[in-house]
Amino acid sequence: MIRSRPFAGVAIAASVTLSAAPALADEGMWTYDNFPLAKVNSAYGLKLDQKWLDRVQAASVRLTTGCSASLVSKSGLVFTNHHCVVECVQDLSSDKRDFVKDGYLTATREEERTCPGMQAEILMSITDVTKDVLGATAGKSGQSFVQARDGAMAAAEQAGCAGDGAVRCQVISLYRGGQYKLYKYRKYSDVRLVFAPEFATAFFGGDPDNFNFPRYNLDIGFVRLYENGKPAVTPQHLTWVSRAPHEGEPTFVSGNPGSTNRLMTVSQLETLRDLTIPVGQLQRSELRGRLIRFSEEGPEQKRVATDPLFGVENSFKVYFGQQFALNDKAFMDAKRVQEAELKAKVAGDAKLAADIGDPWGDIAKAQQAYANNYLRYRQIEGGAGYSKLYDYAKTLVRAAQERGKPSAERLPEYAETRLPLQEKQLLDAKPVDMALEETYLGFWLSKTREYLTPDDAAVKTLLGKESPEGLAKRAVANSKLGDPAARKALWDGGLAAIQASDDPMIQLVLRNDPAARAVRKAWETEVQGPTDAAAERVARAKFAAYGDAVYPDATFSLRLSYGKVAGWTYRGTAVPSTTNFAGLYERATGAEPYELAPRWIAAKDKVNPSTVYNFVTTNDIIGGNSGSPVVNARAEVLGAAFDGNIHSLGGAFGYDGAINRTVVVATSAATEALDKVYGRTALVKELTGK
Amino acid sequence: MIRSRPFAGVAIAASVTLSAAPALADEGMWTYDNFPLAKVNSAYGLKLDQKWLDRVQAASVRLTTGCSASLVSKSGLVFTNHHCVVECVQDLSSDKRDFVKDGYLTATREEERTCPGMQAEILMSITDVTKDVLGATAGKSGQSFVQARDGAMAAAEQAGCAGDGAVRCQVISLYRGGQYKLYKYRKYSDVRLVFAPEFATAFFGGDPDNFNFPRYNLDIGFVRLYENGKPAVTPQHLTWVSRAPHEGEPTFVSGNPGSTNRLMTVSQLETLRDLTIPVGQLQRSELRGRLIRFSEEGPEQKRVATDPLFGVENSFKVYFGQQFALNDKAFMDAKRVQEAELKAKVAGDAKLAADIGDPWGDIAKAQQAYANNYLRYRQIEGGAGYSKLYDYAKTLVRAAQERGKPSAERLPEYAETRLPLQEKQLLDAKPVDMALEETYLGFWLSKTREYLTPDDAAVKTLLGKESPEGLAKRAVANSKLGDPAARKALWDGGLAAIQASDDPMIQLVLRNDPAARAVRKAWETEVQGPTDAAAERVARAKFAAYGDAVYPDATFSLRLSYGKVAGWTYRGTAVPSTTNFAGLYERATGAEPYELAPRWIAAKDKVNPSTVYNFVTTNDIIGGNSGSPVVNARAEVLGAAFDGNIHSLGGAFGYDGAINRTVVVATSAATEALDKVYGRTALVKELTGK
Repeated sequence: MIRSRPFAGVAIAASVTLSAAPALADEGMWTYDNFPLAKVNSAYGLKLDQKWLDRVQAASVRLTTGCSASLVSKSGLVFTNHHCVVECVQDLSSDKRDFVKDGYLTATREEERTCPGMQAEILMSITDVTKDVLGATAGKSGQSFVQARDGAMAAAEQAGCAGDGAVRCQVISLYRGGQYKLYKYRKYSDVRLVFAPEFATAFFGGDPDNFNFPRYNLDIGFVRLYENGKPAVTPQHLTWVSRAPHEGEPTFVSGNPGSTNRLMTVSQLETLRDLTIPVGQLQRSELRGRLIRFSEEGPEQKRVATDPLFGVENSFKVYFGQQFALNDKAFMDAKRVQEAELKAKVAGDAKLAADIGDPWGDIAKAQQAYANNYLRYRQIEGGAGYSKLYDYAKTLVRAAQERGKPSAERLPEYAETRLPLQEKQLLDAKPVDMALEETYLGFWLSKTREYLTPDDAAVKTLLGKESPEGLAKRAVANSKLGDPAARKALWDGGLAAIQASDDPMIQLVLRNDPAARAVRKAWETEVQGPTDAAAERVARAKFAAYGDAVYPDATFSLRLSYGKVAGWTYRGTAVPSTTNFAGLYERATGAEPYELAPRWIAAKDKVNPSTVYNFVTTNDIIGGNSGSPVVNARAEVLGAAFDGNIHSLGGAFGYDGAINRTVVVATSAATEALDKVYGRTALVKELTGK
Repeated sequence: MIRSRPFAGVAIAASVTLSAAPALADEGMWTYDNFPLAKVNSAYGLKLDQKWLDRVQAASVRLTTGCSASLVSKSGLVFTNHHCVVECVQDLSSDKRDFVKDGYLTATREEERTCPGMQAEILMSITDVTKDVLGATAGKSGQSFVQARDGAMAAAEQAGCAGDGAVRCQVISLYRGGQYKLYKYRKYSDVRLVFAPEFATAFFGGDPDNFNFPRYNLDIGFVRLYENGKPAVTPQHLTWVSRAPHEGEPTFVSGNPGSTNRLMTVSQLETLRDLTIPVGQLQRSELRGRLIRFSEEGPEQKRVATDPLFGVENSFKVYFGQQFALNDKAFMDAKRVQEAELKAKVAGDAKLAADIGDPWGDIAKAQQAYANNYLRYRQIEGGAGYSKLYDYAKTLVRAAQERGKPSAERLPEYAETRLPLQEKQLLDAKPVDMALEETYLGFWLSKTREYLTPDDAAVKTLLGKESPEGLAKRAVANSKLGDPAARKALWDGGLAAIQASDDPMIQLVLRNDPAARAVRKAWETEVQGPTDAAAERVARAKFAAYGDAVYPDATFSLRLSYGKVAGWTYRGTAVPSTTNFAGLYERATGAEPYELAPRWIAAKDKVNPSTVYNFVTTNDIIGGNSGSPVVNARAEVLGAAFDGNIHSLGGAFGYDGAINRTVVVATSAATEALDKVYGRTALVKELTGK
């Protein structure tokens, strides 16, 4: 599953070949303003044009929960993955009604309910603001580089969107600081849940089958955009088709890949390999173990932990794949060759060499500072992992401190243009499970003490004489921040209210704040500033060497990738491109996670067993692309991307068209299931017109 | 804590310099038949002789539970660490009486109770059998090399000890196959618990302080050797001293370091770094998380999970340190230089070169086979992690299958000389906690499916249509193997009884056995055979280049290391060599793991606050050395080694005398505490004669 967040079958076989700098066939997550139309038309015998691009762009949706989606009806209906809406499904559930387990099925629009914290965004325009940002940072270094850049980005956003509550402006850094573009979005902050299947259906095969193929998942969800309490009018939607995709059919994935590191230097990749990923994985594994045991304690514990555990396990597998890709000596050697080639091109051009200098050396030097600062930055400023209450408290404290400053001088996440989404996510009502909160907070505190030692000054300030578990219990039990009204009062009350608050979670954040700001400053000064300033020069070197035949690393902004429906062959085994419903029934064992939901057992004789269920394409995607429409050359939607195969896990660092595959749930399966299994005739009619 | 088992403050600062091949000052875990007496006497101005060596050897004890110890009275009293007897303390506890929490204090010998599964062994003699073993393997390769070697080792043991139930013979492979020595031990299979402090006292500071210093732990335990129901007569004991050690006092650690990898080739270290350790750590972290949550579920869960959780956390920290040592580029580069130097010496001697060939290349080649086979070998043949019931079942099944064969043709762990200990450990009565068993078994099954995928043939055979959790629940609930009588019946009944058994754990092992044997065969043929055969040639190259001024890697056999009482300085901070009782009271917070046991709170005004509590020495040790006597040049015991400092975690791969330290609990502290806190006057009299 590949949603973004800090998010995304283990098999140590991650094989990643490397593009030379210009992209190979089917490689690339291209921006809409630099899509290689001519190359694609030539390769696939198509006649795609700007109009086609505009049409697909206008129907492509970004969900602030870390996913992608598409408009599929004229009444604001949006098609995405189940795992992109499961948090909403969980939030709408209670100990009385478990929609995660049972599915969320609406019969009328009145039953559609708002998803807390979710905002949908559709890209309207892209404007180049590179000059403004680079102008602001010229000659600066360290933290002042970071602050000047962040200030210029915030100012450009403010200039682009100020005063229009219906839009959101966001400056996207592309090519690791080589370009800055202002993305202007139409935003929808009332997004309502329309349909979600049972968890057992959407995630059939569970963690064991995740990132594997063949797959048999109905990983679909529908939400609807609302404006002023009514369904949005969206004539620009894609065309839903109920037929199966054809083998070899050209496919385009339009969505928001979250993060890739393909343009990172070798020294940065080594740091990821030797420090960042291992530490993250060790902590994630332990939390996974705690949540597994937690969820075994009873049905209610299982209910509340289902989505969090899915998230942790999904991330675990993503980083497992990344770690083993980076541990592959051949892969790293290829990266070294690639870097040496670029350096040689720079060295061969005296003027360029004088301009570029040695950013690779500068970045390598910053890696030592990275290693020295990372654990404290991660634990002290990074926040309390998955705790909602701590996150609420941190947002309240920081926003109160920052809102008094001019926008461009604030911590960037509190710049004026970013406040509306912060406020929505803070104030929307969401259930908060106290037992889970205590687990998260205790876990974070205990890992912070473990990794920084009990003698670290910041740890002593955090814990005082309490144990991590004791403090977590006390702070969670006595915090009022689970109540949206309490949060609103503190948000509205500003700094005075915060400082007067006796809420233990607010007090915990306040106590930690000086150390957290200090460690952030050290990080920006010693690590982020030098790295980002040097990365701009690496980007300039790449443009000089390869022109615009390169695509930027993923940044959770709209991209288009191209490819076709095709299976693959690995170590002599050919994997076909599609699965069908018959295969689902064959794989079922009756034991979790291979257990069929009751509706599917009941519908066995009604569904067409040869319906194409999931299929794979050669498109180049990554976490964040979840829910992306997979469209053909007629802008018909064939499915929603929901996963990559196991080989694609190395895709964070490189793409191998021979074996990297996008896994898609077909609209053919969605139509058949909505009709025959779920009896959602109104929804089918809205999608198909029939 | 550094006991051996597959076992052992996280701080990413592992700094390991490397010995050139001949050992540097204070480096080395020397065998008693090759201790550098002259060098040590010269360096420290001493006059140690063979008589001194014989005396210390005769008082050094190996515990089969993975620890070391020493004789400290003429009546079989043995001094070791608390964490070396805590499993026994746990086994003697029940839901009615928690000796782990409260301590185990005997007033009379009648209260001393037998520790299940524990055997004590004292080394009597060492005989060189290298020629016999190398003769048997000459010209062999792959699995036949492994079988010939193991058969020759078993035959030498049988020849050395057959018919004498009071001794145990064990052939130790030294220098990774460069030498084979027959170690003959006097064995004591009735070992009784005499004294253990409270867990909170023995492990004050808990996991956060583990492998750190300053420390304040009374990590001591006493057991007594019995023969024919009476305390053993042991006139060769060491002299107990109640005074504190002197700064700079020469110290000798006599014990059984478990395992080091200092003689491994670079390609082997890379495999450890990139595969073996990461996979182990990720699984260990998850199990840690499950056990933490398990122990939070109630007091009884906490009681039964205390020792297992300690074990998992201890191992986690050991391997964390190892992983970051191996991730250190400077460290690996130094290893490469060292290897190149040895290769150059070989290449410079035509005759030697012809004899040695290229074992480094052979081992590097075997690493690919290692990577291909490792996960299946680990999960399918490695066994079900911590499950006692599965271990019992596996021992019963394999022993029944193997005992019908001639000793030299059996799997080596079932050779005739190894059966007595197998039988003791199988049949001794031990409490088995069903909830923990279910956790362990379910964890192993789920990780096996995750790492091998649900489509692996062995996984399908294991699980059938059941889920890992469902199968674990059923097998644990219905197994009778927790009952020693049931185990005895199956042991005595042999293969016929095993095959007729309806015990689900026996059936699970039987079902898995063909795949497990196949994967073991592949491992021995493709990985172990080629590696071990080549390692013999690396050892020959080292002997040729450096003579016997090298020491072998640790193998949980008796070794002697030398050094002195000394603190260290790291990054400008000087760490003193000792702590005292006053520091303990200062560090206490009242919250776990910094909570004092009630007896210590009560005794605050009685104990001498300046009593030296823990101290550090420059001795070179590793896990398995736990409980080792730290003696001076007069064979007086100054303390028991119980830990290494954080820098010593890289000690698996190299020793750095500037910062690697052994952490010791002083006999001065033990005497004062036994007297003033615990009122054990009889024990104090036995130790001190007063």
